[in-house]
Amino acid sequence: PASRLPQLGTTVFSVMSALAQQHQAVNLGQGFPDFEGDPALLDAVNDAMRAGHNQYPPMPGVPALRQAIAAKVEALYGHRYDPDTEITVTAGATQAILTALLSIVHPGDEVIVLEPAYDSYAPNIALAGGTMVPVPLDPQTFRPDIDRLRAAITPRTRALMINSPHNPSGAVWTADELQQLAALLDGTEVVVISDEVYEHMVYDGQQHQSVARLPSLAARSFVVSSFGKTYHVTGWKIGYVTAPASLMAEFRKVHQYNVFSVNAPMQVGLATYMRDPAPYLGLSDFYQHKRDRFRAGLADTAFQLLPCPGSYFQSVNYSRLPESLAAMGDMALCQWLTREIGVAAIPMSAFYSRGSDAKIIRFCFAKKDETLDLALARLKKV
Amino acid sequence: PASRLPQLGTTVFSVMSALAQQHQAVNLGQGFPDFEGDPALLDAVNDAMRAGHNQYPPMPGVPALRQAIAAKVEALYGHRYDPDTEITVTAGATQAILTALLSIVHPGDEVIVLEPAYDSYAPNIALAGGTMVPVPLDPQTFRPDIDRLRAAITPRTRALMINSPHNPSGAVWTADELQQLAALLDGTEVVVISDEVYEHMVYDGQQHQSVARLPSLAARSFVVSSFGKTYHVTGWKIGYVTAPASLMAEFRKVHQYNVFSVNAPMQVGLATYMRDPAPYLGLSDFYQHKRDRFRAGLADTAFQLLPCPGSYFQSVNYSRLPESLAAMGDMALCQWLTREIGVAAIPMSAFYSRGSDAKIIRFCFAKKDETLDLALARLKKV
Ligand SMILES: CSCCC(=O)C(=O)O
Ligand SMILES: CSCCC(=O)C(=O)O
Repeated sequence: PASRLPQLGTTVFSVMSALAQQHQAVNLGQGFPDFEGDPALLDAVNDAMRAGHNQYPPMPGVPALRQAIAAKVEALYGHRYDPDTEITVTAGATQAILTALLSIVHPGDEVIVLEPAYDSYAPNIALAGGTMVPVPLDPQTFRPDIDRLRAAITPRTRALMINSPHNPSGAVWTADELQQLAALLDGTEVVVISDEVYEHMVYDGQQHQSVARLPSLAARSFVVSSFGKTYHVTGWKIGYVTAPASLMAEFRKVHQYNVFSVNAPMQVGLATYMRDPAPYLGLSDFYQHKRDRFRAGLADTAFQLLPCPGSYFQSVNYSRLPESLAAMGDMALCQWLTREIGVAAIPMSAFYSRGSDAKIIRFCFAKKDETLDLALARLKKV
Repeated sequence: PASRLPQLGTTVFSVMSALAQQHQAVNLGQGFPDFEGDPALLDAVNDAMRAGHNQYPPMPGVPALRQAIAAKVEALYGHRYDPDTEITVTAGATQAILTALLSIVHPGDEVIVLEPAYDSYAPNIALAGGTMVPVPLDPQTFRPDIDRLRAAITPRTRALMINSPHNPSGAVWTADELQQLAALLDGTEVVVISDEVYEHMVYDGQQHQSVARLPSLAARSFVVSSFGKTYHVTGWKIGYVTAPASLMAEFRKVHQYNVFSVNAPMQVGLATYMRDPAPYLGLSDFYQHKRDRFRAGLADTAFQLLPCPGSYFQSVNYSRLPESLAAMGDMALCQWLTREIGVAAIPMSAFYSRGSDAKIIRFCFAKKDETLDLALARLKKV
């Protein structure tokens, strides 16, 4: 019988991590830290296990965790979500996005995606029976073009997916751009799915512009975040989504029959740990140091740095590399770098539904300083 | 805009647990233990966290856990699954079942479900764009009727969902019934989704008949199981699925874009803990004692016991209760029992897509002996 997703292969992140392991390369591909989460967080989870929090938690999440999320979002973005009806804990951000799409997209509906885009969006839309409508970001600055967005909206547009700070480019939406988006959507029924998993990684004194900051956007948006990325525990697979009660009611119908609920001791531990805002408030500083160290090292190479205002990803253009390398496709170059230089990266083309030849690759700098230094020493040989 | 799942309310398990809490009733509704998992298992998970297993595990699961699953299934059911290509760890059994359906059902395909059935099946089929074809089990014995199954199969039949030991009835398929199913499906392309989450709870010396035991069925089946149920940690939300490589390849395409991967430290801890088969080999004995204690107590009431050859659920017929109670619908009776008697249960009608009035309710006996005794003392007042 025919495949439901015939074109789909294994995600590039798994492919490059496997290749990195095979060649013992420094893995700057798949986005995850090579350092540990806070022992206090591990303690909190262990305490929760010992205290007997090992049976089904409530379907939308442990109340104390939903309350902590509500308090954080209100303090940072000024919007109050009701923990009972407007916040749900998920088995990671990807699961939140698929569930959101399954809950609102009817067969044939259009979903606008700004490309480059994280590689789960297209298959998620396909699984929900929707039609993806890709709209390019500016290929240099990765900024949204509101006019192109306007042109893409039709009566069939059910949802628009945005992502700031942006994976892979690190681009960060400005308050002005969000205002323009709000004005554009005014009077439509378009739902926004806002992937904000890198919300606590915004550099150079800028602020993360959550869609929750604008009441008219918050009223039509699912906002998705990730504890794994914020607390250096990507393998825990735990995130959350906020939305107005009417959207969240639909979300929970699907959520209860996708995962039903999410790991109980992790939720209880996170609720305890979240009482202290210092870890997430300090995260931008923590990563800005790494970004600066990594950029300074790359400045001595033939790679050309793209701006990195947010996220833990640094993209570079490789067109000034020696001709034989510069002529390679970005996937071939990433494989070559992994095998021959011992540093794994991710090709930008993997974030486009129809590929791209912009000669850009992405490095993850969520690594120990010594890991970054080792990678830089190797990259200087290119 | 219209709801994707307009008819759907909150799952009965959440509804009844909330009501139980509100009335401080003994909660024999939603199926979960009120006792703790083995401290050795908690230790193993804690050790895994401290050893740094906190970043993304491989998409299909931690290799050591997949190997442990392969070894267990081979030892118990004689079928060797390849851990690399035929086993995937999931965020619980429900997520495994939704993912399996999303990976094989095309819009308009038919999926046969034996009713009564777990309440996630119907919405899962709807989300996959399929059409559910309910086939009743025998209303007294809950045995499958192979002739009715034969009559339900059409050229559009994509999958058949089975569940043994059965929730809610506890019925267990016999080897002969499995053989008949294998013969029935011979020559068709029907995929079987076999929900075997209660595989280690089969009583009175019977054996669990996994579809993995029959090569011709194993070759067309997803087999789903649950660590939460086997190890008394339902809140960890971790399970697994086995299938031949061709089916598993399709499953993983969806899995990687649903949850991507599953909680790393829990997987590593489970891999360590699974080395000892004693906990799952001893589970049937453990629960048979509870079943017998609970049945002995109920024998003194007006409830009529149905057989309970497997699972941790005991169903009873209430038609011999005083007329005012016997005339109630099963949902109304469960609410009444919760409020007035202080014991929560689950109505059988919740497991039928079009309801039922068989006057049966389900109790979960995965409880401490003193909890069962307290519930029995209260139920004797009915
Ligand atoms: C789920 S693996 C991918 C991790 C990630 O977000 C990235 O590398 O972009
Ligand atoms: C996910 S809550 C339901 C638990 C269960 O399997 C049951 O009670 O039948």
